[in-house]
Amino acid sequence: MTTYWQKEIECMPREEIEKLQLKRTKGMLKRAYDRIAWFKKQYDAHGVKPEDFKELDDLSKFPLVQKDDLRDNYPFGLFAEPMENVIRIHASSGTTGKPILGGYTKHDVYDVFAEVNARSLNCCDVTSQDIIQNAYGYGLFTGGLGIHYGGEMIGATVIPISGGNTARQLMLMEDFGSTAITCTPSYMIYLAEEINKRGINRENIKLKVGIHGAEPWSEKMRKKIEELMPGMTAIDIYGLTEIIGPGVSVNCTVNRYKGLHIWEDHFLPEILDPKNDFERVAPGEKGEIAFSTITREATPLPRYRAKDITRLNYEKCACGRTHARHDKITGRTDDMLIIHGINVFPSQIESVLMDIPQLAGYYEIVVDRKDLGSLDKVTIRIELTEEHFSDKVKDIEAFTKEVADKLYSSLLFHAKIELVPPGTIPRSVGKAQRVVDMRADKI
Amino acid sequence: MTTYWQKEIECMPREEIEKLQLKRTKGMLKRAYDRIAWFKKQYDAHGVKPEDFKELDDLSKFPLVQKDDLRDNYPFGLFAEPMENVIRIHASSGTTGKPILGGYTKHDVYDVFAEVNARSLNCCDVTSQDIIQNAYGYGLFTGGLGIHYGGEMIGATVIPISGGNTARQLMLMEDFGSTAITCTPSYMIYLAEEINKRGINRENIKLKVGIHGAEPWSEKMRKKIEELMPGMTAIDIYGLTEIIGPGVSVNCTVNRYKGLHIWEDHFLPEILDPKNDFERVAPGEKGEIAFSTITREATPLPRYRAKDITRLNYEKCACGRTHARHDKITGRTDDMLIIHGINVFPSQIESVLMDIPQLAGYYEIVVDRKDLGSLDKVTIRIELTEEHFSDKVKDIEAFTKEVADKLYSSLLFHAKIELVPPGTIPRSVGKAQRVVDMRADKI
Repeated sequence: MTTYWQKEIECMPREEIEKLQLKRTKGMLKRAYDRIAWFKKQYDAHGVKPEDFKELDDLSKFPLVQKDDLRDNYPFGLFAEPMENVIRIHASSGTTGKPILGGYTKHDVYDVFAEVNARSLNCCDVTSQDIIQNAYGYGLFTGGLGIHYGGEMIGATVIPISGGNTARQLMLMEDFGSTAITCTPSYMIYLAEEINKRGINRENIKLKVGIHGAEPWSEKMRKKIEELMPGMTAIDIYGLTEIIGPGVSVNCTVNRYKGLHIWEDHFLPEILDPKNDFERVAPGEKGEIAFSTITREATPLPRYRAKDITRLNYEKCACGRTHARHDKITGRTDDMLIIHGINVFPSQIESVLMDIPQLAGYYEIVVDRKDLGSLDKVTIRIELTEEHFSDKVKDIEAFTKEVADKLYSSLLFHAKIELVPPGTIPRSVGKAQRVVDMRADKI
Repeated sequence: MTTYWQKEIECMPREEIEKLQLKRTKGMLKRAYDRIAWFKKQYDAHGVKPEDFKELDDLSKFPLVQKDDLRDNYPFGLFAEPMENVIRIHASSGTTGKPILGGYTKHDVYDVFAEVNARSLNCCDVTSQDIIQNAYGYGLFTGGLGIHYGGEMIGATVIPISGGNTARQLMLMEDFGSTAITCTPSYMIYLAEEINKRGINRENIKLKVGIHGAEPWSEKMRKKIEELMPGMTAIDIYGLTEIIGPGVSVNCTVNRYKGLHIWEDHFLPEILDPKNDFERVAPGEKGEIAFSTITREATPLPRYRAKDITRLNYEKCACGRTHARHDKITGRTDDMLIIHGINVFPSQIESVLMDIPQLAGYYEIVVDRKDLGSLDKVTIRIELTEEHFSDKVKDIEAFTKEVADKLYSSLLFHAKIELVPPGTIPRSVGKAQRVVDMRADKI
């Protein structure tokens, strides 16, 4: 049985959704223009006014917003509300320099952020009967608190365990009988392997759904997680700090290989062609996704470039929901590697590697360049499983060649393969760091 | 101007408070008896029934609850509600073994936990105008989420930065203009010293209040924090996972040297004499404090031994609040060291050390025993300030003797003093570990 949090919205006829989007987008553009000096300046320079937005297609007249625009306006330059109306600030996990901020009014916390997470949890069959082990990091990062508020809203039992401390994660998973877990897909693989390694009785593991996001991952990785965790369905959840955090979109359990439902009454998506001046692509075509936050008060963001490559599907889903779905995000424009002229995403490499049973599923792509102007050198460091590492040492050369050939035949590029012993690649309790860029002159 | 969150409750006449307590305690005892098998068994064995509670003094007929009772009933044996009504679980930061749990219904989260923290924040002049840098750890620990919900409830801007990452703490403190900070007192000292060490412009630090708890600390430590942070008032907040988390009691800014207001409509305090069969002591006398959670649904806890030594003061406070105050907790029964027959609390040692300007305020009490039956050996390792460390090396012996003498004249026990260079004692971002117990046969 499909569970809905707000059936009347989730299953709203397409024309109703669009009517709502039209009204909300109008309001949002006016708020941004009237309340945020930077938007007024941008729009004036661009020769557009909020009044020029009369139908949904008019949105393309308005300029896009980029990550650097957020950095340039740090900390509060893009806030539409005085601080006394802001009850929370989240920040992106930028490793260096100033972070990217999102502000939340009470409305933003409860009527947007908690609400879309409540819907997302119901969408993958998590209800008040469930015990959610929330292993996303709590704090400035949106993951932990986003799921937390959504989980409490639907009346599930939330275990705010946050990231890390694998021994405690496993102890409480058994003791509490957690039925749902939320964490990055790479940490889920690690937890699953630890369950095996520690010989934990599978009978005590009650997990029926894993909700994984915060990094791009492949369908092959989903298959691997589900193989390692019998009885558990692996669900993809998507979001970004700039838009709201997790809960922008999510798989439904009915149809999890067919994309993620975007909560379109809050987040208006567009697919754009970065090679064609960011024109909208034809329906069903791939391109870069942009979102407009059409209900958010504190930090409204019209036409924000998410830098993720995907496509939209407006067909009504078997789960009954009418909100558009986007394909699983398998790579970000930012993450794309251009290797000897070939575009390749880490997730494409991952897909190939996940098909080779001797590999443990941990890998690292090291990009290096001897000196300016010379070709990039790519080394893919891949972990063997415990079993195959000990067995195959003598065959290592042949096996290395086999992996390199598989990568070449799928992706048409040559990489140096380095097979490493189990436990060599650093484990991540948050986002996995797949690409190590050693190029001195990298942009 | 004094700010109240719920003036009608916070300033309620004494007899009204007691009427409310009577009614709520009755309900709580009945719920515990009817819904929790362990309480029924205990009370039956003790020959008491909820009906025997007719006036507040009757509470002493009911047996006390100890920490071990919670451990024995791990995980859900003391829950009064089915899990589908429980929306959150917190756990104590026990370092080994199974943790101590607290369960929360929606009522417990919003109408108890968030409410008492909202009151506590107003009680120390934090309002919707403030930016709270919440540096308590988020997750299973109650500190982070307790302040978080209270802060959002009053409409302040909460920065959920969680513990650790001092560089980021200081960056956001300047960039956001945080006006309140919440963290342990020992981490506050560390932050204050880092502000000096990094030469941060004091003009950019807007903190007007620091709300410090999660470990016992002395009035001398308050003085030191306030000296290091000009313009900031240091406030003590108290709580424990078993009762609710932070917000059980708090200083008011009007009268911060005169104890912490207990939110008595939620938590009923008693002071007991551990040396006299836990009889109630006379009003104003010192003893061990016990709390009854008289409004909590998921895990009601009648007469829980907090193991903290204090006394109660029922006088109406200058701030207008009528809720009883307890003295600053300067030591837990658990923390008390018995050194050559003398009872001593780490906070008493701290008080002496804080008066010696050459010391940096970091110390560690190392208790060791050569073999079973021999006397405990106590070494107090104390950090010198940068300035005095370099200056005074030649005088170190004389100075060591001076510190030892001061400790002896105040506390009447001899300890070995070891003066160590700045930076030697480990800094804590959470609870400070003051006592290092090396005794092999410690209990």
